[in-house]
Amino acid sequence: MAQKPSIPKGTRDFGRLEMAWRNYIFDTVRSVFKTFGYSQIETPAMENLSTLMGKYGEEGDKLLFRILNSGDAFSGVDFDKPLASQVCEKGLRYDLTVPFARYVVQHRDEISFPFKRFQMQPVWRADRPQKGRYREFWQCDVDVIGSRSQLCELELVQIVDEVYRRLGIRVLVKINNRKVLSGLAEICGAPDKVVDITVAIDKLDKIGLDAVKAEMLEKGLTPEAVALLEPVLTLSGTNAEKISVMRSLMAGSEIGLKGLDELEELFGFIGQAGISTPCEIDLSLARGLNYYTGAIFEVKALDWEIGSISGGGRYDNLTGIFGLPDMSGVGISFGADRIYDVLTGLDKFPDSLAVSSTLLFANMGETAYVLPVATALRAAGIAVEIYPDSSKLKKQFDYADHKGIPFISICGETEAAEGLIQIKNLASGEQRSFAKDDVAGMLGFLAA
Amino acid sequence: MAQKPSIPKGTRDFGRLEMAWRNYIFDTVRSVFKTFGYSQIETPAMENLSTLMGKYGEEGDKLLFRILNSGDAFSGVDFDKPLASQVCEKGLRYDLTVPFARYVVQHRDEISFPFKRFQMQPVWRADRPQKGRYREFWQCDVDVIGSRSQLCELELVQIVDEVYRRLGIRVLVKINNRKVLSGLAEICGAPDKVVDITVAIDKLDKIGLDAVKAEMLEKGLTPEAVALLEPVLTLSGTNAEKISVMRSLMAGSEIGLKGLDELEELFGFIGQAGISTPCEIDLSLARGLNYYTGAIFEVKALDWEIGSISGGGRYDNLTGIFGLPDMSGVGISFGADRIYDVLTGLDKFPDSLAVSSTLLFANMGETAYVLPVATALRAAGIAVEIYPDSSKLKKQFDYADHKGIPFISICGETEAAEGLIQIKNLASGEQRSFAKDDVAGMLGFLAA
Repeated sequence: MAQKPSIPKGTRDFGRLEMAWRNYIFDTVRSVFKTFGYSQIETPAMENLSTLMGKYGEEGDKLLFRILNSGDAFSGVDFDKPLASQVCEKGLRYDLTVPFARYVVQHRDEISFPFKRFQMQPVWRADRPQKGRYREFWQCDVDVIGSRSQLCELELVQIVDEVYRRLGIRVLVKINNRKVLSGLAEICGAPDKVVDITVAIDKLDKIGLDAVKAEMLEKGLTPEAVALLEPVLTLSGTNAEKISVMRSLMAGSEIGLKGLDELEELFGFIGQAGISTPCEIDLSLARGLNYYTGAIFEVKALDWEIGSISGGGRYDNLTGIFGLPDMSGVGISFGADRIYDVLTGLDKFPDSLAVSSTLLFANMGETAYVLPVATALRAAGIAVEIYPDSSKLKKQFDYADHKGIPFISICGETEAAEGLIQIKNLASGEQRSFAKDDVAGMLGFLAA
Repeated sequence: MAQKPSIPKGTRDFGRLEMAWRNYIFDTVRSVFKTFGYSQIETPAMENLSTLMGKYGEEGDKLLFRILNSGDAFSGVDFDKPLASQVCEKGLRYDLTVPFARYVVQHRDEISFPFKRFQMQPVWRADRPQKGRYREFWQCDVDVIGSRSQLCELELVQIVDEVYRRLGIRVLVKINNRKVLSGLAEICGAPDKVVDITVAIDKLDKIGLDAVKAEMLEKGLTPEAVALLEPVLTLSGTNAEKISVMRSLMAGSEIGLKGLDELEELFGFIGQAGISTPCEIDLSLARGLNYYTGAIFEVKALDWEIGSISGGGRYDNLTGIFGLPDMSGVGISFGADRIYDVLTGLDKFPDSLAVSSTLLFANMGETAYVLPVATALRAAGIAVEIYPDSSKLKKQFDYADHKGIPFISICGETEAAEGLIQIKNLASGEQRSFAKDDVAGMLGFLAA
């Protein structure tokens, strides 16, 4: 009566090599975050539904995984009323942002602001699973909260620059500012049309200027407004030139000018910090419009076709929903799964990640003889295995091959009697013989 | 209408310092696992309830967190039948062992046996929360499956030895063997009394020999059986002496002698491998009797009163429930929360873990000047922050103090004009001045 084992759709097991590759991404991201002084935190997988509900829109609420109350969840339930909310009080984390906001408010008295934190944990969404979209996936978020300085935005751009430099992925950083978008809508006399304007700008490459103008008219913008926006639609040149064109256009909008000041300061810092990754203003960027209030970021891989691999922005009121107003912050999220896909596609994972152990002592029944040698090599930081059974050598070699172990040592009675350790480089075929206590010699051979 | 934020009972947030301490444990354990050639895997937080149910006993089934089906979970439900099983198909991982067994069976064709894996992930149990018991907690499991060699048991003892040596915790490894316990029950003519015999032996220290003998009689053992067991109850001396006493006693029990052979081989290996941690036979060890079939391990901290901080054993049929019989394995689990408590109690966490960044550039409005210096120091691996706002210096010093940052650099107009970088060691008060491009000089001072 054996069950056929499987896992829930949209979830994944990660084996040896996948873990080595994933950890390479996480370790790289983490070590960059740390050189900028960001501290890691973790929050529980389960949050109270009252914390999560209403934060991701109606659609988001539907995608929350709810956890049945423990004990007898259905006792005392009113079956004439909606059941889910009566039998579930907890849900799985849907993103890292809302739990972070909850964390900041709950721990405000222990935190020294500005609070620079990062968080790398799985999140769960009851989305329809499809290629590249999972029900359990990992987010790596880095945020600083409690400062309005554009140096915070700069730091995130520096982090992006350094992370992708280390990973060997060429990227483009697209930068926009929500206040500039508000300013554009304001000068058009249509402050409620921010999204329509952004969507239209975004289509420029695909459908051309005339079609975009037609679409804007259709959306209810006046011909005067569309004429006003034309210089923005055809914006080109350096970032400074773009800002200059918009500044003359936006003279009448206080919020628009504020946005341009922010962009100008940020690009000034980017120049001073000597960032080599290309950064450009892109007015069509409008991610998460509902909560971003300043800078908006998106990072594209230049050599691999995929959506954005990092993104974020500034929010002025993230913690307001939990009772802590006026706490401005800015953050960016690294999409581990997409970065994984890019590194796989570009074949950029270092070969060394495939190696699990450096040396396998084959089991010739003389394990007592090699035990102290294995211990000495491990003490020097070398990953060493002793094959546990005295199986056929073919099987032991296959094991080394399957695990990507580059060196094998075959020591039988003869070697034990002579006090020798034989080590063979499986790739080159070179074989060397060492005195049992010549650990330094072995280390040299294994490092070659 | 601000919500007062909180998290579900039995769960925890981990802040900066707690994370640094926890990661120290995880990193230590992981790096030891790796030097023995174990590979990390991860499984999803959610498993199908069909995978989990019935594996942890009736009590365990009740402690599973169930996840409400997504979509309209209650449509088509028969309200006259038990509801939970109709509206929930998935549950949260309860331990790492059953998902590991499921993983091995599901991926049997990709795995090269013996399969040496480790896994460090949270598990969830709807237990009543209390001091030291959480509803979300972390397990670090290391197992080798697909070999019956006692070298596998040895390797786990070596791992325990090395992990606790690196963590600076003195421990005692207690070792038993399920076959020896079966043998004892067999020679007493009471093969069903294994648990009663073990429980009685365990009480010896507390209640004394006579009371233990009385209890055994009460449990239905014959006076002859109790007399037979007396040499076991009063067992003393070295491990070899203990084995020798039991061997003469157990001459009539095939399974008992097999268990003694295993113990003898394991202690032989322990001696040959030069393990410095004390290891002793303890017949009262009987953890998880239901699935252990050979060696049983338990690790006690010697200098801190707490339950076992690691434990495990050999199982012969873990994967049988999923259709893969005769797959023997042995594993051990490190209890991260208890290790954390021991390290806290003994004050053994390295002080360096409290340091988040090495240097804070105070913000005197001259950030453009210090930006390239910060970049150069970070490139050398130093964690450096620039305070984002030109706040009062008192506030900036408080920030450094709160985050445990040991060095601060205050560079204003004067330093910028002179091309200098001032750095102060906050503990010693020593202040040094460097040319802006003397990164090597700064690194030397910061490393001191």
